[in-house]
Amino acid sequence: MNGYAQDKDAYLKRLKRIEGQVRGLHRMVESDEYCIDVLTQISAVTKALQAVSIGLIDEHLKHCVAQAVAEGGETADAKVAEASAAIARLVRS
Amino acid sequence: MNGYAQDKDAYLKRLKRIEGQVRGLHRMVESDEYCIDVLTQISAVTKALQAVSIGLIDEHLKHCVAQAVAEGGETADAKVAEASAAIARLVRS
Amino acid sequence: MNGYAQDKDAYLKRLKRIEGQVRGLHRMVESDEYCIDVLTQISAVTKALQAVSIGLIDEHLKHCVAQAVAEGGETADAKVAEASAAIARLVRS
Amino acid sequence: MNGYAQDKDAYLKRLKRIEGQVRGLHRMVESDEYCIDVLTQISAVTKALQAVSIGLIDEHLKHCVAQAVAEGGETADAKVAEASAAIARLVRS
Repeated sequence: MNGYAQDKDAYLKRLKRIEGQVRGLHRMVESDEYCIDVLTQISAVTKALQAVSIGLIDEHLKHCVAQAVAEGGETADAKVAEASAAIARLVRS
Repeated sequence: MNGYAQDKDAYLKRLKRIEGQVRGLHRMVESDEYCIDVLTQISAVTKALQAVSIGLIDEHLKHCVAQAVAEGGETADAKVAEASAAIARLVRS
Repeated sequence: MNGYAQDKDAYLKRLKRIEGQVRGLHRMVESDEYCIDVLTQISAVTKALQAVSIGLIDEHLKHCVAQAVAEGGETADAKVAEASAAIARLVRS
Repeated sequence: MNGYAQDKDAYLKRLKRIEGQVRGLHRMVESDEYCIDVLTQISAVTKALQAVSIGLIDEHLKHCVAQAVAEGGETADAKVAEASAAIARLVRS
């Protein structure tokens, strides 16, 4: 079971909202809205995505990584390395 | 006319693709895909949005800011300050 | 003359402070301080560097880019392209 | 014992180099070097700090968080929450 399972509906709602925001960006460009206003909206979408990723990492650590660590051995090492790589991608994106 | 006007179709295509990527995130969560795979996809969407914003800033500088600077005076100062604020939001998002 | 010339002393002071913060990080690690506290300090140093870069970009646009745009032609195009590339590096770092 | 203990010397070396890079920034501004070159160097310092933080997070997960999780209970929950908060600060900085 995934870490985010218990908050699945909340994540689905947030992603649906972000999808709507990106559609809104499309409408803004379609109707030639001012560059700065489009840029401001892009920053908002980026922050919303960031918040989802921070939530997912937290739940992944709490459930998937914690479970693997409880098992110990190579399972734990692989799971922690995988989480670290995902965190590195987020920090660098 | 907006800085991005001449590349409007390209931006619309990119935003449509990003919208599809976010819909893809929604599908991944709906079908309980592994947290790390969802996180990897979020990093990809963030990078795609970043590339759009970097393009828009470049075109805004080339057209809107350059035009205002050519006019000079308060118009120019206001336009540069506005661009700097948008860049700050992007750097911080 | 550089865009930041008139605020040179302020930038020198800020960079000296950031240098001190990085030396502080070194001391923290040397005295085996807790990882999370070191990470919190790294976030603070990153934000301070970000603020310096946002200031430098603003001044560069106001002075160097504005001057080149006033000259027009290839000088202007090159200067804007150069600024856009620097902004892209900052957004991506 | 801290997660980074076994790599302490490597971290100290990296932080000393970053300190030198920031001193280099100070010299650049002092000698009125071109804004874009200073900005390029700031991006390099930011990336170096990012790499240190990603390393520290990895080691913190492997040692401190893993140990707390093995103990279980409130210790584990608090340690994971603390790590998540540090990761959130890094993603947002």
